[in-house]
Amino acid sequence: MAEFDVQSWSAERLVRVERALESWVGIDAPADLGEAMRYSVLDGGKRLRPLLVLAASEAVGGNAQAALRAACAAELIHAYSLVHDDMPCMDNDVLRRGKPTVHVKFGEAGALLAGDALQALAFELLTPESDQVPEAMQARLCRLLAHAAGSAGMAGGQAIDLASVGVKLNEDQLRQMHRLKTGALLQGSVLMGAACGEVSTAGRAALADFGAAIGLAFQVVDDILDVTADSATLGKTAGKDADQDKPTYVSILGLARSRSYAHELYAQALAALDASGLADTRALRALADMVVNRAH
Amino acid sequence: MAEFDVQSWSAERLVRVERALESWVGIDAPADLGEAMRYSVLDGGKRLRPLLVLAASEAVGGNAQAALRAACAAELIHAYSLVHDDMPCMDNDVLRRGKPTVHVKFGEAGALLAGDALQALAFELLTPESDQVPEAMQARLCRLLAHAAGSAGMAGGQAIDLASVGVKLNEDQLRQMHRLKTGALLQGSVLMGAACGEVSTAGRAALADFGAAIGLAFQVVDDILDVTADSATLGKTAGKDADQDKPTYVSILGLARSRSYAHELYAQALAALDASGLADTRALRALADMVVNRAH
Repeated sequence: MAEFDVQSWSAERLVRVERALESWVGIDAPADLGEAMRYSVLDGGKRLRPLLVLAASEAVGGNAQAALRAACAAELIHAYSLVHDDMPCMDNDVLRRGKPTVHVKFGEAGALLAGDALQALAFELLTPESDQVPEAMQARLCRLLAHAAGSAGMAGGQAIDLASVGVKLNEDQLRQMHRLKTGALLQGSVLMGAACGEVSTAGRAALADFGAAIGLAFQVVDDILDVTADSATLGKTAGKDADQDKPTYVSILGLARSRSYAHELYAQALAALDASGLADTRALRALADMVVNRAH
Repeated sequence: MAEFDVQSWSAERLVRVERALESWVGIDAPADLGEAMRYSVLDGGKRLRPLLVLAASEAVGGNAQAALRAACAAELIHAYSLVHDDMPCMDNDVLRRGKPTVHVKFGEAGALLAGDALQALAFELLTPESDQVPEAMQARLCRLLAHAAGSAGMAGGQAIDLASVGVKLNEDQLRQMHRLKTGALLQGSVLMGAACGEVSTAGRAALADFGAAIGLAFQVVDDILDVTADSATLGKTAGKDADQDKPTYVSILGLARSRSYAHELYAQALAALDASGLADTRALRALADMVVNRAH
Protein backbone atom coordinates (compact mmCIF):
# COMPACT_ATOMS: atom_id res chain seq x y z
CA MET A 1 0.00 0.00 0.00
CA ALA A 2 1.33 3.48 -0.86
CA GLU A 3 2.62 5.54 2.01
CA PHE A 4 -0.09 7.43 3.84
CA ASP A 5 0.37 11.19 4.08
CA VAL A 6 -1.69 12.20 7.09
CA GLN A 7 -0.94 15.89 6.59
CA SER A 8 -2.49 16.08 3.18
CA TRP A 9 -5.28 13.67 4.16
CA SER A 10 -6.25 15.93 7.07
CA ALA A 11 -5.75 19.18 5.21
CA GLU A 12 -8.11 18.16 2.44
CA ARG A 13 -10.82 17.04 4.85
CA LEU A 14 -10.44 20.09 7.07
CA VAL A 15 -11.12 22.32 4.07
CA ARG A 16 -14.40 20.48 3.50
CA VAL A 17 -15.37 20.62 7.16
CA GLU A 18 -14.56 24.30 7.54
CA ARG A 19 -16.45 25.15 4.37
CA ALA A 20 -19.47 23.15 5.54
CA LEU A 21 -19.48 24.70 9.01
CA GLU A 22 -19.09 28.14 7.45
CA SER A 23 -22.16 27.56 5.30
CA TRP A 24 -24.33 25.83 7.93
CA VAL A 25 -23.73 27.55 11.28
CA GLY A 26 -25.63 30.62 12.40
CA ILE A 27 -27.13 31.39 9.01
CA ASP A 28 -30.46 33.23 9.38
CA ALA A 29 -30.33 33.13 13.19
CA PRO A 30 -31.94 36.32 14.55
CA ALA A 31 -30.43 39.07 16.72
CA ASP A 32 -26.78 38.30 17.48
CA LEU A 33 -27.44 34.61 18.06
CA GLY A 34 -25.97 33.72 14.68
CA GLU A 35 -22.84 35.70 15.36
CA ALA A 36 -22.38 34.03 18.75
CA MET A 37 -22.88 30.59 17.20
CA ARG A 38 -20.33 31.29 14.48
CA TYR A 39 -17.87 32.74 16.97
CA SER A 40 -18.21 29.53 19.01
CA VAL A 41 -17.54 27.21 16.11
CA LEU A 42 -15.56 28.85 13.32
CA ASP A 43 -11.91 29.75 13.25
CA GLY A 44 -10.47 27.39 15.80
CA GLY A 45 -10.24 23.89 17.13
CA LYS A 46 -8.38 20.82 16.02
CA ARG A 47 -11.55 19.32 14.53
CA LEU A 48 -10.55 15.95 15.92
CA ARG A 49 -14.16 14.73 16.08
CA PRO A 50 -14.96 15.61 12.46
CA LEU A 51 -11.74 13.92 11.33
CA LEU A 52 -12.66 10.80 13.29
CA VAL A 53 -16.10 10.71 11.67
CA LEU A 54 -14.63 11.09 8.20
CA ALA A 55 -11.84 8.58 8.76
CA ALA A 56 -14.25 5.97 10.10
CA SER A 57 -16.69 6.60 7.28
CA GLU A 58 -13.94 6.21 4.68
CA ALA A 59 -12.80 2.99 6.33
CA VAL A 60 -16.27 1.51 5.78
CA GLY A 61 -16.87 3.10 2.37
CA GLY A 62 -19.53 5.38 3.84
CA ASN A 63 -21.91 7.93 2.31
CA ALA A 64 -19.78 11.08 1.96
CA GLN A 65 -22.64 13.54 2.36
CA ALA A 66 -23.85 11.79 5.52
CA ALA A 67 -20.32 11.72 6.88
CA LEU A 68 -19.76 15.42 6.31
CA ARG A 69 -23.00 16.22 8.12
CA ALA A 70 -22.14 13.87 10.97
CA ALA A 71 -18.65 15.37 11.18
CA CYS A 72 -20.07 18.86 11.58
CA ALA A 73 -22.76 17.69 13.99
CA ALA A 74 -20.16 16.12 16.29
CA GLU A 75 -18.16 19.34 16.21
CA LEU A 76 -21.25 21.40 17.09
CA ILE A 77 -21.90 19.25 20.15
CA HIS A 78 -18.27 19.66 21.16
CA ALA A 79 -18.43 23.42 20.56
CA TYR A 80 -21.63 23.88 22.57
CA SER A 81 -20.12 21.94 25.46
CA LEU A 82 -17.11 24.26 25.51
CA VAL A 83 -19.33 27.35 25.45
CA HIS A 84 -21.38 26.16 28.40
CA ASP A 85 -18.35 24.74 30.21
CA ASP A 86 -16.55 28.08 30.08
CA MET A 87 -19.45 29.96 31.69
CA PRO A 88 -18.96 31.51 35.13
CA CYS A 89 -21.21 28.96 36.83
CA MET A 90 -19.06 26.14 35.44
CA ASP A 91 -15.30 26.54 34.84
CA ASN A 92 -15.43 30.34 34.61
CA ASP A 93 -12.79 30.54 31.91
CA VAL A 94 -12.17 33.71 29.94
CA LEU A 95 -9.72 32.36 27.36
CA ARG A 96 -10.30 29.63 24.76
CA ARG A 97 -8.12 28.97 21.72
CA GLY A 98 -6.39 32.24 22.54
CA LYS A 99 -9.60 34.28 22.25
CA PRO A 100 -12.10 35.64 24.78
CA THR A 101 -14.70 33.00 25.58
CA VAL A 102 -18.23 33.34 24.25
CA HIS A 103 -19.80 34.68 27.44
CA VAL A 104 -17.06 37.31 27.69
CA LYS A 105 -17.87 38.42 24.17
CA PHE A 106 -21.67 37.95 24.03
CA GLY A 107 -22.73 37.93 27.67
CA GLU A 108 -23.80 34.95 29.74
CA ALA A 109 -27.32 34.80 28.34
CA GLY A 110 -25.91 35.00 24.82
CA ALA A 111 -23.53 32.13 25.53
CA LEU A 112 -26.27 30.03 27.09
CA LEU A 113 -28.52 30.47 24.05
CA ALA A 114 -25.72 29.96 21.54
CA GLY A 115 -24.86 26.63 23.17
CA ASP A 116 -28.50 25.57 23.21
CA ALA A 117 -28.95 26.51 19.57
CA LEU A 118 -25.76 24.69 18.54
CA GLN A 119 -27.03 21.48 20.10
CA ALA A 120 -30.30 21.75 18.18
CA LEU A 121 -28.41 22.58 14.98
CA ALA A 122 -26.39 19.38 15.30
CA PHE A 123 -29.61 17.38 14.95
CA GLU A 124 -30.85 19.62 12.16
CA LEU A 125 -27.69 18.90 10.19
CA LEU A 126 -28.26 15.18 10.62
CA THR A 127 -31.80 15.31 9.26
CA PRO A 128 -31.78 17.12 5.91
CA GLU A 129 -34.89 16.94 3.76
CA SER A 130 -32.63 15.76 0.93
CA ASP A 131 -32.59 12.15 -0.22
CA GLN A 132 -28.79 12.17 -0.39
CA VAL A 133 -28.83 10.71 3.11
CA PRO A 134 -31.37 7.88 3.58
CA GLU A 135 -33.76 8.60 6.45
CA ALA A 136 -32.91 5.35 8.21
CA MET A 137 -29.26 6.47 8.26
CA GLN A 138 -30.32 9.89 9.56
CA ALA A 139 -32.15 8.22 12.43
CA ARG A 140 -29.17 6.05 13.34
CA LEU A 141 -26.86 9.07 13.33
CA CYS A 142 -29.25 11.00 15.58
CA ARG A 143 -29.44 8.02 17.94
CA LEU A 144 -25.66 7.79 18.25
CA LEU A 145 -25.16 11.52 18.69
CA ALA A 146 -27.96 11.97 21.22
CA HIS A 147 -26.62 9.10 23.28
CA ALA A 148 -23.05 10.45 23.15
CA ALA A 149 -24.18 13.95 24.15
CA GLY A 150 -26.71 13.10 26.83
CA SER A 151 -26.84 12.02 30.44
CA ALA A 152 -25.21 8.65 29.69
CA GLY A 153 -22.49 10.48 27.76
CA MET A 154 -20.98 13.94 27.74
CA ALA A 155 -23.52 15.73 29.95
CA GLY A 156 -23.35 12.88 32.46
CA GLY A 157 -19.57 13.11 32.55
CA GLN A 158 -19.75 16.81 33.21
CA ALA A 159 -22.14 16.18 36.08
CA ILE A 160 -19.63 13.75 37.62
CA ASP A 161 -16.89 16.32 37.04
CA LEU A 162 -18.96 18.97 38.80
CA ALA A 163 -19.64 16.68 41.73
CA SER A 164 -16.00 15.71 42.13
CA VAL A 165 -14.29 19.06 42.68
CA GLY A 166 -12.40 18.73 45.93
CA VAL A 167 -13.36 15.06 46.16
CA LYS A 168 -10.80 12.27 46.10
CA LEU A 169 -11.61 9.95 43.19
CA ASN A 170 -9.91 6.64 42.66
CA GLU A 171 -8.67 5.65 39.21
CA ASP A 172 -11.84 3.74 38.33
CA GLN A 173 -14.03 6.70 39.17
CA LEU A 174 -11.80 9.05 37.21
CA ARG A 175 -11.90 6.70 34.23
CA GLN A 176 -15.68 6.52 34.38
CA MET A 177 -15.92 10.32 34.48
CA HIS A 178 -13.71 10.71 31.43
CA ARG A 179 -15.29 7.85 29.50
CA LEU A 180 -18.46 9.90 29.64
CA LYS A 181 -17.20 13.46 29.60
CA THR A 182 -14.76 13.27 26.69
CA GLY A 183 -14.77 9.64 25.61
CA ALA A 184 -18.43 9.30 24.70
CA LEU A 185 -18.36 11.94 21.97
CA LEU A 186 -15.00 10.80 20.58
CA GLN A 187 -16.22 7.22 20.45
CA GLY A 188 -19.57 8.45 19.14
CA SER A 189 -17.75 10.22 16.32
CA VAL A 190 -16.10 6.97 15.26
CA LEU A 191 -19.42 5.12 15.49
CA MET A 192 -21.23 7.79 13.50
CA GLY A 193 -18.62 7.46 10.77
CA ALA A 194 -19.15 3.70 10.78
CA ALA A 195 -22.93 4.25 10.58
CA CYS A 196 -22.47 6.09 7.28
CA GLY A 197 -21.59 2.79 5.60
CA GLU A 198 -21.87 -0.95 5.93
CA VAL A 199 -19.76 -2.75 8.53
CA SER A 200 -19.90 -6.18 10.12
CA THR A 201 -20.93 -6.54 13.75
CA ALA A 202 -17.35 -7.50 14.63
CA GLY A 203 -16.01 -4.54 12.68
CA ARG A 204 -18.34 -2.17 14.50
CA ALA A 205 -17.34 -3.63 17.86
CA ALA A 206 -13.67 -3.17 16.99
CA LEU A 207 -14.30 0.44 16.02
CA ALA A 208 -16.13 0.96 19.32
CA ASP A 209 -13.06 -0.40 21.14
CA PHE A 210 -10.84 1.88 19.09
CA GLY A 211 -13.03 4.88 19.95
CA ALA A 212 -13.06 4.02 23.65
CA ALA A 213 -9.28 3.69 23.77
CA ILE A 214 -8.50 6.95 22.01
CA GLY A 215 -11.27 8.71 23.91
CA LEU A 216 -9.59 7.88 27.17
CA ALA A 217 -6.09 8.49 25.79
CA PHE A 218 -7.19 11.96 24.76
CA GLN A 219 -8.07 12.82 28.35
CA VAL A 220 -4.94 11.32 29.85
CA VAL A 221 -2.86 13.40 27.44
CA ASP A 222 -4.98 16.45 28.28
CA ASP A 223 -4.18 16.00 31.95
CA ILE A 224 -0.48 15.61 31.15
CA LEU A 225 -0.45 18.75 28.99
CA ASP A 226 -2.26 20.71 31.70
CA VAL A 227 0.85 20.40 33.87
CA THR A 228 3.60 20.29 31.20
CA ALA A 229 2.54 22.90 28.63
CA ASP A 230 2.09 26.64 28.99
CA SER A 231 -1.06 28.66 28.32
CA ALA A 232 0.24 30.10 25.04
CA THR A 233 0.81 26.62 23.61
CA LEU A 234 -2.51 25.31 24.89
CA GLY A 235 -4.51 28.37 23.84
CA LYS A 236 -6.27 28.09 27.18
CA THR A 237 -5.33 28.57 30.81
CA ALA A 238 -2.72 25.94 31.83
CA GLY A 239 -2.54 24.46 35.30
CA LYS A 240 -6.23 25.02 35.86
CA ASP A 241 -7.10 21.55 37.05
CA ALA A 242 -4.66 21.63 39.91
CA ASP A 243 -5.70 25.20 40.77
CA GLN A 244 -9.34 24.12 40.91
CA ASP A 245 -8.50 21.03 42.91
CA LYS A 246 -9.89 18.75 40.22
CA PRO A 247 -8.82 15.12 40.14
CA THR A 248 -6.65 14.29 37.09
CA TYR A 249 -4.64 11.33 35.86
CA VAL A 250 -1.47 13.14 36.83
CA SER A 251 -2.70 13.79 40.36
CA ILE A 252 -3.74 10.15 40.79
CA LEU A 253 -1.10 8.23 38.80
CA GLY A 254 1.74 10.74 38.64
CA LEU A 255 3.32 12.01 35.41
CA ALA A 256 5.38 8.97 34.43
CA ARG A 257 2.60 6.44 34.90
CA SER A 258 0.14 8.76 33.11
CA ARG A 259 2.49 8.79 30.12
CA SER A 260 2.82 5.05 30.02
CA TYR A 261 -0.96 4.69 30.41
CA ALA A 262 -1.48 6.95 27.37
CA HIS A 263 0.81 4.71 25.35
CA GLU A 264 -0.93 1.59 26.56
CA LEU A 265 -4.25 3.02 25.38
CA TYR A 266 -2.66 3.90 22.05
CA ALA A 267 -1.53 0.29 21.64
CA GLN A 268 -5.07 -0.87 22.48
CA ALA A 269 -6.47 1.45 19.83
CA LEU A 270 -4.13 0.09 17.16
CA ALA A 271 -4.88 -3.49 18.18
CA ALA A 272 -8.58 -2.79 17.78
CA LEU A 273 -7.99 -1.52 14.25
CA ASP A 274 -6.02 -4.64 13.42
CA ALA A 275 -8.92 -6.73 14.71
CA SER A 276 -11.53 -4.75 12.76
CA GLY A 277 -11.06 -6.61 9.50
CA LEU A 278 -11.26 -3.29 7.64
CA ALA A 279 -9.01 -2.94 4.62
CA ASP A 280 -7.67 0.57 5.10
CA THR A 281 -7.49 2.05 8.59
CA ARG A 282 -4.49 4.29 7.98
CA ALA A 283 -6.34 7.53 8.62
CA LEU A 284 -7.78 6.22 11.89
CA ARG A 285 -4.31 5.06 12.90
CA ALA A 286 -2.87 8.48 12.11
CA LEU A 287 -5.55 10.16 14.20
CA ALA A 288 -4.77 7.89 17.15
CA ASP A 289 -1.18 8.94 16.76
CA MET A 290 -2.20 12.61 16.68
CA VAL A 291 -4.24 12.20 19.89
CA VAL A 292 -1.37 10.69 21.84
CA ASN A 293 1.52 12.73 20.48
CA ARG A 294 -0.10 16.18 20.30
CA ALA A 295 1.55 19.16 21.95
CA HIS A 296 -1.70 21.04 22.64
CA MET B 1 -70.82 12.09 16.32
CA ALA B 2 -71.01 11.43 20.07
CA GLU B 3 -70.24 14.33 22.35
CA PHE B 4 -66.54 14.79 22.97
CA ASP B 5 -65.45 14.76 26.60
CA VAL B 6 -62.19 16.69 26.65
CA GLN B 7 -61.68 16.11 30.35
CA SER B 8 -61.59 12.37 30.08
CA TRP B 9 -59.73 12.50 26.76
CA SER B 10 -56.96 14.60 28.36
CA ALA B 11 -56.92 12.72 31.63
CA GLU B 12 -56.33 9.41 29.92
CA ARG B 13 -53.52 10.77 27.76
CA LEU B 14 -51.90 12.63 30.63
CA VAL B 15 -51.63 9.37 32.56
CA ARG B 16 -49.74 7.85 29.64
CA VAL B 17 -47.46 10.86 29.25
CA GLU B 18 -46.67 11.11 32.96
CA ARG B 19 -45.95 7.42 33.15
CA ALA B 20 -43.68 7.60 30.12
CA LEU B 21 -41.79 10.63 31.41
CA GLU B 22 -41.47 8.98 34.79
CA SER B 23 -39.87 5.93 33.19
CA TRP B 24 -37.66 7.75 30.66
CA VAL B 25 -36.29 10.88 32.34
CA GLY B 26 -33.13 10.91 34.41
CA ILE B 27 -32.85 7.14 34.69
CA ASP B 28 -29.21 6.07 35.11
CA ALA B 29 -27.91 9.64 34.91
CA PRO B 30 -24.87 9.98 37.20
CA ALA B 31 -24.34 12.24 40.23
CA ASP B 32 -27.44 14.37 40.87
CA LEU B 33 -28.00 15.06 37.17
CA GLY B 34 -30.84 12.56 37.03
CA GLU B 35 -32.54 14.11 40.03
CA ALA B 36 -32.26 17.59 38.52
CA MET B 37 -33.67 16.34 35.22
CA ARG B 38 -36.61 14.68 36.94
CA TYR B 39 -37.25 17.74 39.10
CA SER B 40 -37.35 19.83 35.92
CA VAL B 41 -39.87 17.64 34.15
CA LEU B 42 -42.01 15.60 36.53
CA ASP B 43 -44.82 16.77 38.76
CA GLY B 44 -45.95 19.91 37.01
CA GLY B 45 -46.90 21.60 33.80
CA LYS B 46 -50.03 21.59 31.71
CA ARG B 47 -48.43 19.21 29.18
CA LEU B 48 -49.98 21.21 26.38
CA ARG B 49 -47.29 20.18 23.89
CA PRO B 50 -47.67 16.44 24.55
CA LEU B 51 -51.44 16.75 24.25
CA LEU B 52 -51.06 18.56 20.92
CA VAL B 53 -48.77 15.82 19.61
CA LEU B 54 -51.19 13.10 20.67
CA ALA B 55 -54.28 14.90 19.38
CA ALA B 56 -52.66 15.55 15.98
CA SER B 57 -51.43 11.98 15.78
CA GLU B 58 -54.89 10.62 16.57
CA ALA B 59 -56.42 12.91 13.95
CA VAL B 60 -54.20 11.30 11.30
CA GLY B 61 -54.40 7.75 12.68
CA GLY B 62 -50.73 7.89 13.72
CA ASN B 63 -48.36 5.33 15.24
CA ALA B 64 -49.17 5.45 18.97
CA GLN B 65 -45.68 4.52 20.13
CA ALA B 66 -44.09 7.19 17.95
CA ALA B 67 -46.62 9.76 19.14
CA LEU B 68 -45.96 9.02 22.81
CA ARG B 69 -42.22 9.44 22.24
CA ALA B 70 -42.73 12.64 20.28
CA ALA B 71 -45.08 13.94 22.97
CA CYS B 72 -42.45 13.43 25.65
CA ALA B 73 -39.67 14.80 23.45
CA ALA B 74 -41.59 18.03 22.89
CA GLU B 75 -42.16 18.34 26.62
CA LEU B 76 -38.45 17.82 27.32
CA ILE B 77 -37.52 20.65 24.96
CA HIS B 78 -40.08 22.86 26.68
CA ALA B 79 -38.80 21.84 30.12
CA TYR B 80 -35.17 22.48 29.25
CA SER B 81 -36.05 25.93 27.90
CA LEU B 82 -37.75 26.81 31.19
CA VAL B 83 -34.77 25.61 33.22
CA HIS B 84 -32.33 27.73 31.21
CA ASP B 85 -34.76 30.64 30.96
CA ASP B 86 -35.12 30.83 34.74
CA MET B 87 -31.36 31.07 35.32
CA PRO B 88 -29.92 34.26 36.80
CA CYS B 89 -28.29 35.28 33.51
CA MET B 90 -31.68 35.09 31.78
CA ASP B 91 -34.95 35.85 33.60
CA ASN B 92 -33.56 35.19 37.07
CA ASP B 93 -36.74 33.65 38.37
CA VAL B 94 -36.86 31.72 41.62
CA LEU B 95 -40.41 30.35 41.39
CA ARG B 96 -41.89 28.04 38.75
CA ARG B 97 -45.13 26.08 39.11
CA GLY B 98 -45.10 27.13 42.74
CA LYS B 99 -41.74 25.45 43.43
CA PRO B 100 -38.16 26.73 43.64
CA THR B 101 -36.60 26.82 40.17
CA VAL B 102 -33.98 24.27 39.21
CA HIS B 103 -30.95 26.50 39.73
CA VAL B 104 -32.22 27.46 43.19
CA LYS B 105 -32.47 23.80 44.06
CA PHE B 106 -29.45 22.32 42.20
CA GLY B 107 -27.17 25.30 41.63
CA GLU B 108 -26.57 27.14 38.38
CA ALA B 109 -24.17 24.59 36.96
CA GLY B 110 -26.62 21.81 37.83
CA ALA B 111 -29.42 23.64 36.04
CA LEU B 112 -27.27 24.32 33.00
CA LEU B 113 -26.33 20.64 32.68
CA ALA B 114 -29.85 19.39 33.38
CA GLY B 115 -31.17 21.57 30.55
CA ASP B 116 -28.45 20.40 28.20
CA ALA B 117 -29.11 16.76 29.04
CA LEU B 118 -32.86 17.17 28.61
CA GLN B 119 -32.37 18.49 25.10
CA ALA B 120 -30.21 15.49 24.20
CA LEU B 121 -32.72 13.13 25.81
CA ALA B 122 -35.48 14.52 23.60
CA PHE B 123 -33.60 13.23 20.55
CA GLU B 124 -32.79 9.95 22.27
CA LEU B 125 -36.50 9.36 22.88
CA LEU B 126 -37.20 9.94 19.20
CA THR B 127 -34.64 7.38 18.05
CA PRO B 128 -35.26 4.09 19.87
CA GLU B 129 -33.49 1.00 18.61
CA SER B 130 -36.90 -0.68 18.51
CA ASP B 131 -38.69 -1.34 15.22
CA GLN B 132 -41.98 -0.12 16.68
CA VAL B 133 -41.16 3.26 15.16
CA PRO B 134 -39.86 3.08 11.56
CA GLU B 135 -36.49 4.78 11.20
CA ALA B 136 -37.73 7.07 8.45
CA MET B 137 -40.39 8.33 10.86
CA GLN B 138 -37.75 8.78 13.58
CA ALA B 139 -35.72 10.95 11.21
CA ARG B 140 -38.71 13.11 10.29
CA LEU B 141 -39.59 13.60 13.96
CA CYS B 142 -35.99 14.62 14.75
CA ARG B 143 -36.03 17.05 11.81
CA LEU B 144 -39.22 18.73 13.02
CA LEU B 145 -38.11 18.91 16.64
CA ALA B 146 -34.61 20.20 15.90
CA HIS B 147 -36.03 22.90 13.65
CA ALA B 148 -38.61 23.94 16.26
CA ALA B 149 -36.01 24.07 19.03
CA GLY B 150 -33.14 25.73 17.19
CA SER B 151 -32.08 29.13 15.98
CA ALA B 152 -34.96 29.38 13.50
CA GLY B 153 -37.33 28.41 16.30
CA MET B 154 -37.37 28.56 20.08
CA ALA B 155 -33.74 29.50 20.69
CA GLY B 156 -33.97 32.18 18.00
CA GLY B 157 -37.08 33.62 19.64
CA GLN B 158 -35.32 33.77 22.97
CA ALA B 159 -32.44 35.62 21.36
CA ILE B 160 -34.87 38.22 20.00
CA ASP B 161 -36.50 38.42 23.43
CA LEU B 162 -33.11 38.98 25.03
CA ALA B 163 -32.25 41.71 22.53
CA SER B 164 -35.56 43.51 23.00
CA VAL B 165 -35.58 44.28 26.72
CA GLY B 166 -36.10 48.01 26.98
CA VAL B 167 -36.52 48.28 23.21
CA LYS B 168 -39.73 49.46 21.62
CA LEU B 169 -40.99 46.72 19.28
CA ASN B 170 -43.85 47.18 16.88
CA GLU B 171 -46.58 44.55 16.57
CA ASP B 172 -44.89 42.78 13.64
CA GLN B 173 -41.62 42.44 15.53
CA LEU B 174 -43.41 41.20 18.64
CA ARG B 175 -45.31 38.66 16.54
CA GLN B 176 -42.10 37.43 14.94
CA MET B 177 -40.47 37.04 18.36
CA HIS B 178 -43.36 34.97 19.69
CA ARG B 179 -43.79 32.92 16.53
CA LEU B 180 -40.29 31.67 17.23
CA LYS B 181 -40.07 31.71 21.00
CA THR B 182 -43.33 29.93 21.85
CA GLY B 183 -45.03 29.33 18.53
CA ALA B 184 -42.39 27.18 16.88
CA LEU B 185 -42.52 24.39 19.47
CA LEU B 186 -46.33 24.45 19.74
CA GLN B 187 -46.63 24.28 15.97
CA GLY B 188 -43.82 21.71 15.89
CA SER B 189 -45.79 19.57 18.34
CA VAL B 190 -48.78 19.54 16.00
CA LEU B 191 -46.54 18.74 13.02
CA MET B 192 -44.78 15.95 14.91
CA GLY B 193 -48.15 14.42 15.69
CA ALA B 194 -49.06 14.63 12.00
CA ALA B 195 -45.71 13.02 11.10
CA CYS B 196 -46.69 9.93 13.13
CA GLY B 197 -49.26 9.04 10.47
CA GLU B 198 -50.27 9.66 6.89
CA VAL B 199 -51.73 13.02 5.93
CA SER B 200 -52.27 14.80 2.62
CA THR B 201 -50.15 17.83 1.75
CA ALA B 202 -53.22 20.04 2.17
CA GLY B 203 -54.01 18.42 5.50
CA ARG B 204 -50.48 19.00 6.73
CA ALA B 205 -50.59 22.63 5.63
CA ALA B 206 -53.88 23.11 7.46
CA LEU B 207 -52.40 21.60 10.61
CA ALA B 208 -49.41 23.93 10.26
CA ASP B 209 -51.84 26.88 10.10
CA PHE B 210 -53.67 25.54 13.12
CA GLY B 211 -50.38 25.23 15.02
CA ALA B 212 -49.27 28.72 14.07
CA ALA B 213 -52.57 30.25 15.19
CA ILE B 214 -52.72 28.55 18.57
CA GLY B 215 -48.99 29.13 19.07
CA LEU B 216 -49.49 32.84 18.82
CA ALA B 217 -52.78 32.77 20.74
CA PHE B 218 -50.97 31.05 23.58
CA GLN B 219 -48.56 33.96 23.90
CA VAL B 220 -51.21 36.65 23.62
CA VAL B 221 -53.13 34.96 26.44
CA ASP B 222 -49.89 34.64 28.40
CA ASP B 223 -49.37 38.38 28.15
CA ILE B 224 -52.96 39.02 29.22
CA LEU B 225 -52.64 36.70 32.22
CA ASP B 226 -49.37 38.34 33.23
CA VAL B 227 -51.33 41.52 34.03
CA THR B 228 -54.71 40.07 35.08
CA ALA B 229 -53.82 37.02 37.20
CA ASP B 230 -51.94 36.82 40.48
CA SER B 231 -48.76 34.83 41.20
CA ALA B 232 -50.58 32.13 43.15
CA THR B 233 -52.88 31.36 40.21
CA LEU B 234 -50.04 31.48 37.70
CA GLY B 235 -47.61 29.46 39.80
CA LYS B 236 -44.95 31.95 38.75
CA THR B 237 -44.24 35.61 39.38
CA ALA B 238 -47.03 37.76 37.89
CA GLY B 239 -46.43 41.22 36.45
CA LYS B 240 -42.84 40.31 35.56
CA ASP B 241 -42.93 41.43 31.96
CA ALA B 242 -43.89 44.98 32.84
CA ASP B 243 -41.38 45.02 35.71
CA GLN B 244 -38.62 43.92 33.34
CA ASP B 245 -39.70 46.41 30.69
CA LYS B 246 -40.37 43.65 28.18
CA PRO B 247 -42.65 44.36 25.24
CA THR B 248 -45.94 42.41 25.41
CA TYR B 249 -49.21 42.33 23.49
CA VAL B 250 -50.88 44.17 26.32
CA SER B 251 -48.26 46.93 26.31
CA ILE B 252 -48.55 47.33 22.54
CA LEU B 253 -52.24 46.66 21.84
CA GLY B 254 -53.81 47.29 25.24
CA LEU B 255 -55.89 44.73 27.14
CA ALA B 256 -59.14 44.89 25.16
CA ARG B 257 -57.51 44.58 21.74
CA SER B 258 -55.24 41.80 23.03
CA ARG B 259 -58.35 39.87 24.08
CA SER B 260 -60.03 40.29 20.74
CA TYR B 261 -56.80 39.31 18.97
CA ALA B 262 -56.67 36.09 20.99
CA HIS B 263 -60.21 35.28 19.87
CA GLU B 264 -59.39 36.10 16.28
CA LEU B 265 -56.49 33.64 16.39
CA TYR B 266 -58.79 31.05 17.96
CA ALA B 267 -61.20 31.47 15.06
CA GLN B 268 -58.30 31.07 12.61
CA ALA B 269 -57.25 27.87 14.35
CA LEU B 270 -60.76 26.39 14.08
CA ALA B 271 -61.05 27.44 10.44
CA ALA B 272 -57.77 25.64 9.72
CA LEU B 273 -59.15 22.46 11.27
CA ASP B 274 -62.28 22.75 9.15
CA ALA B 275 -60.09 23.09 6.07
CA SER B 276 -57.89 20.14 7.00
CA GLY B 277 -60.18 17.50 5.58
CA LEU B 278 -59.52 15.35 8.66
CA ALA B 279 -62.44 13.34 9.97
CA ASP B 280 -62.12 13.90 13.69
CA THR B 281 -60.42 17.03 14.99
CA ARG B 282 -62.39 17.33 18.22
CA ALA B 283 -59.37 16.90 20.49
CA LEU B 284 -57.40 19.54 18.60
CA ARG B 285 -60.39 21.87 18.79
CA ALA B 286 -60.67 21.30 22.51
CA LEU B 287 -56.99 22.07 22.98
CA ALA B 288 -57.35 25.33 21.06
CA ASP B 289 -60.20 26.16 23.41
CA MET B 290 -58.02 25.32 26.40
CA VAL B 291 -55.22 27.59 25.13
CA VAL B 292 -57.48 30.61 24.73
CA ASN B 293 -59.70 30.18 27.77
CA ARG B 294 -57.15 29.07 30.34
CA ALA B 295 -56.85 30.88 33.66
CA HIS B 296 -53.12 30.13 34.12
